[in-house]
Amino acid sequence: MAQELLRANEEIARENRAVVDAQKLLTINLISAPGAGKTTLLEKTIAGLKDDLSIGVIEGDIYTTRDAERIAGQGVAVVQINTSGGCHLDARMVATALQALPLNMLDLLFIENVGNLVCPAEFHLGEDYKVAVLSVTEGSDKPAKYPLVFREAQAVVINKTDLLPYTDFALDTAVKELKSINSILEIFNVSAKNGAGMEAWCIWLKALVHQKGQSVMQ
Amino acid sequence: MAQELLRANEEIARENRAVVDAQKLLTINLISAPGAGKTTLLEKTIAGLKDDLSIGVIEGDIYTTRDAERIAGQGVAVVQINTSGGCHLDARMVATALQALPLNMLDLLFIENVGNLVCPAEFHLGEDYKVAVLSVTEGSDKPAKYPLVFREAQAVVINKTDLLPYTDFALDTAVKELKSINSILEIFNVSAKNGAGMEAWCIWLKALVHQKGQSVMQ
Repeated sequence: MAQELLRANEEIARENRAVVDAQKLLTINLISAPGAGKTTLLEKTIAGLKDDLSIGVIEGDIYTTRDAERIAGQGVAVVQINTSGGCHLDARMVATALQALPLNMLDLLFIENVGNLVCPAEFHLGEDYKVAVLSVTEGSDKPAKYPLVFREAQAVVINKTDLLPYTDFALDTAVKELKSINSILEIFNVSAKNGAGMEAWCIWLKALVHQKGQSVMQ
Repeated sequence: MAQELLRANEEIARENRAVVDAQKLLTINLISAPGAGKTTLLEKTIAGLKDDLSIGVIEGDIYTTRDAERIAGQGVAVVQINTSGGCHLDARMVATALQALPLNMLDLLFIENVGNLVCPAEFHLGEDYKVAVLSVTEGSDKPAKYPLVFREAQAVVINKTDLLPYTDFALDTAVKELKSINSILEIFNVSAKNGAGMEAWCIWLKALVHQKGQSVMQ
């Protein structure tokens, strides 16, 4: 049953990918534990990129529309998905959301997954890349304890670095563990709150958008 | 399928409950997001109670044994459950773990669930009470966004209060939202790290252990 479910999801994910590829639209699936700061990171990322790029957001939440309201405040196209208790987004939910977005107008699409470091990693949505967000207050043991999401991800944003002086988070250890799980990971040390490290993250995103825009469709 | 699975789980949970009730053993299911500080809270709680109570711990983790090793350092009986990718403990896993513990020697049993604010809330394990742990760095919007766990819980430990000065966490708002979700919630503001608020939490646990010890079995 679980395998069938994942296979069916894979198929719809491939269709979603074809849809965003046809528009040369870079799509990022943001995954983290609850409260790692995905929405704040998105707000600040949008503020940093919106003069150069046209951005859309699919907001996944279990019940509320709070995050979608925050993101709509940034003046970008937002579609809300409520999973009604579901612990992750799946490709079918994203397929519906894609229909509600002006895809041909967009350069960059973020999908903010449900706050959960376990289940979302198993469900591809049709994204180009998964990006994991890890806040320093969660502790530097989290990569080893929840490896799948970090294995699936292309990049990790280590967020809330402004709180480093008040935590036991061992940045070097965390980076080493992340690299041992996934040697190609791009790692960004960021404080979405005070802006530290946001520039490198935004430059990386712009480079990927550019790359996808240049890609020759097959 | 999901309903059948939950029903089958309920049945085993009732059997587990009968096992711990027969020993008048108070059993607490600790649930939180990854990194909210469940293990540190447990370490400090054990340190505060072990002169008065005999404590056992069932440690749920996806892959590692790191938390069980930390808890074993406290000199109490620990059994590790690895879910091998599973996003929550279920009653069957706990049934097996119960067989490995000297239940008749214990007064208080903690079950530390997998770090996940969504899925564990749906799976009763046979515990007397669920206790949710929420760290202030996760943000005060989390109760509204993940209501089920707070509805199911008997108490909430708001942890990492030592970081309150460095976050936007609105303690009054969080408490109001928690009470609106579940009016009977006991709420403890705690810093497991520096010990603030730990006494009230330990007193509450001791009172429940005493109450269960006095209970007349039916």
